[in-house]
Amino acid sequence: MTNAPQANSSTGVPGFADAAATDPVRLGWMRGSPPPPEHTIRFSDGSYWRFPMRRWSFSHWRELVPTVNVARGPGPAYVLPRAIRDDLDAVSWTPLGGGESLNWAQSIDANYTDGIVVLHRGRIVAEHYRGALREDLPHIAFSVTKSFFGVIASTLITEGRLDPAAPVAHYLPELDRSGFGDAKVTQVLDMTTALRHTEQYDDPASDFGDYARASGLAPRPAGYSGADSTYAYLAAIAKDGEHGRAFTYRSINTDVVGWLIARVTGLAPQEALRARLWGVLGVEDDAFLQVDGVGTPLVAVALNARLRDLARFGEMLRLDGQFNGRQVVPAEVVRDLRGGGSREAFTHAGYRTLPGWSYRRQWWISHNDHEAYMARGIHGQAIYVDPAAEMVIARFASHPLASNVHLDPTSLPAYHALARHLISHPAG
Amino acid sequence: MTNAPQANSSTGVPGFADAAATDPVRLGWMRGSPPPPEHTIRFSDGSYWRFPMRRWSFSHWRELVPTVNVARGPGPAYVLPRAIRDDLDAVSWTPLGGGESLNWAQSIDANYTDGIVVLHRGRIVAEHYRGALREDLPHIAFSVTKSFFGVIASTLITEGRLDPAAPVAHYLPELDRSGFGDAKVTQVLDMTTALRHTEQYDDPASDFGDYARASGLAPRPAGYSGADSTYAYLAAIAKDGEHGRAFTYRSINTDVVGWLIARVTGLAPQEALRARLWGVLGVEDDAFLQVDGVGTPLVAVALNARLRDLARFGEMLRLDGQFNGRQVVPAEVVRDLRGGGSREAFTHAGYRTLPGWSYRRQWWISHNDHEAYMARGIHGQAIYVDPAAEMVIARFASHPLASNVHLDPTSLPAYHALARHLISHPAG
Repeated sequence: MTNAPQANSSTGVPGFADAAATDPVRLGWMRGSPPPPEHTIRFSDGSYWRFPMRRWSFSHWRELVPTVNVARGPGPAYVLPRAIRDDLDAVSWTPLGGGESLNWAQSIDANYTDGIVVLHRGRIVAEHYRGALREDLPHIAFSVTKSFFGVIASTLITEGRLDPAAPVAHYLPELDRSGFGDAKVTQVLDMTTALRHTEQYDDPASDFGDYARASGLAPRPAGYSGADSTYAYLAAIAKDGEHGRAFTYRSINTDVVGWLIARVTGLAPQEALRARLWGVLGVEDDAFLQVDGVGTPLVAVALNARLRDLARFGEMLRLDGQFNGRQVVPAEVVRDLRGGGSREAFTHAGYRTLPGWSYRRQWWISHNDHEAYMARGIHGQAIYVDPAAEMVIARFASHPLASNVHLDPTSLPAYHALARHLISHPAG
Repeated sequence: MTNAPQANSSTGVPGFADAAATDPVRLGWMRGSPPPPEHTIRFSDGSYWRFPMRRWSFSHWRELVPTVNVARGPGPAYVLPRAIRDDLDAVSWTPLGGGESLNWAQSIDANYTDGIVVLHRGRIVAEHYRGALREDLPHIAFSVTKSFFGVIASTLITEGRLDPAAPVAHYLPELDRSGFGDAKVTQVLDMTTALRHTEQYDDPASDFGDYARASGLAPRPAGYSGADSTYAYLAAIAKDGEHGRAFTYRSINTDVVGWLIARVTGLAPQEALRARLWGVLGVEDDAFLQVDGVGTPLVAVALNARLRDLARFGEMLRLDGQFNGRQVVPAEVVRDLRGGGSREAFTHAGYRTLPGWSYRRQWWISHNDHEAYMARGIHGQAIYVDPAAEMVIARFASHPLASNVHLDPTSLPAYHALARHLISHPAG
């Protein structure tokens, strides 16, 4: 590590060594047979979840936990033409809240990016991989996962198979006595439920820790006596206030979305994902989802896929659902999510990096001058769709801090600057 | 279950319900969101390993444990032409040890077959799937896994990179003080090591239980204080007698083979499998291996793959390594394993269904009039190569009993009868 920049360097996050100094390949994490103790990463002891070890874990998730395959099917991949542009690296921008200006190339490492791909008018104009990720490896998408299932649920609404105004208990009597019981389907989808449940990723006292242990996202301590599965955990959640008023980000809403999809379609969530999206998008590779101890997939947080396949999903939405030679999802679904949710409800959550945004159908809507919208996952996972710039960005990362509030200052303005550049220089 | 034949029917194994009555799809195991408690299968409570639940587990292994992918690579699959023959079902034979004669069609369910494919002169002449298995799903191969790594180690010997006469400790000083330390590489490969370690699958008191808990093949009880990984477990194995005299089947030998491969090639075992076999065989799909708590693959027992891909591997060997447009492994490797090991050493193991057989390089050699040889895994996994009949059989099963001694009476004579039929009726 003698040649590596140390913590608090100009490109790192205060308190953490920077991207180059925490490159898991360079550091030899999990290399050797067996890896030496000081470079061994385990699920059981929680090291998989610590920084910088998670820089390896996020590209090796299935080696840590049980998973279920989501097959791409036998057809050919939809080819994304390549037209790499050398003028993008110099595009510069100023971080949210001010500070020194950075350029696109610098933003990649500043954000602990594992992989980033930019599509412009459907062509790959930039693509980079770092650290443990390669173009042929899957990376965990965390809450970007939610946006896939949001699109599926929204499609079921359009088809009249899922009633957004019905209470959750109408479909899931198992949740009748929980806080979800009288919530409308649309409130679960837009996360305006009022529930006694906190979601703070780095606080061991947060309810999210209980959720993580119930679902298998985190190891269970000896003598664990909590919920045995994700669905058992959901059934014990209490109501806290009035549904429909305030947006509060809680992953457990998405688990209810997944359960609703399963109940309405008769397919397990991973089967619905294959039937509705993964098997028809022309993706390059199978994806997978972590499953809990009884085989239920973690639809809120644990899709793993190749980066370009996330980009294909974003491009399909940019094209109003028309992709790979077919209408993959109804244009109405895209129109609805692009329209956004209640901006008033959103303000209750107090996201200082997302002024004027809203949340709709498991998507984050910017309402900016380009009408950009996003799928967002902790530690920097993202799909960014910019309709005005005909641009889609897919990004995997392993940022030291979970909440995107720490990444937004150096990513949102970079995306917007790139979009403006592509509009003003469409041909490179 | 009212329509299903009960235990002790004419086609079942005494004490167990028969194949039709234990079909996991028909019984609804792990169906529903969530599956009802009486049809839920868990790793944590050991139900995945019990009969009939294992009839589901064997086709859904990655949903139970951590695994690592073995990529097939980007090339096209090697197409196995289909020439299904309707004259095979009636081929009849008498079980080893006598009894009522059965035909080929009957043998499939009598053996709790999950899938079976027969190649004759490289063409698929029979192919069947049952229960939880489908042609596009992977199934656990159990100790058939060993035979893949045996071929890789044998190839490294041919290349002069692994010395069969060297003591294990020469390559693996970590095992110097274990019973493996002074064993020759060839003795580990041919399982003539003398070690204090018993391998009885259905006896909880057998050392195999400790091995299973160390490697992650079985759940660990609360307060577990045994070995933390497969390699840590190996290092604690004591010597018991003199190496090189008697064949004794112990999976731990194969873990040493995998470790040797890793040490000699600098590749993790799963990477060596991809580089040497999976990426060059023209297989249809990726395979995967279960990994232990520190990422080491279970090279003795936990390859999962599609059935036809096992058949491709067998066909490659039948063709002396020449397959998919290249020499996949040296012909010398095939010649060596076909030649067999010490038949005298083999007799010490007392396999009553395998008189005159031997064990060589992680393969079972029949020395019968067709010079057939096999890869064999518990509960009925098999690759059967019959050079005289130009026939290869790959088979997955979920037989109620682990040891193949229970399956051999109704499978070995069936394979041989089919081979004789194909020789006498080569054109169908």
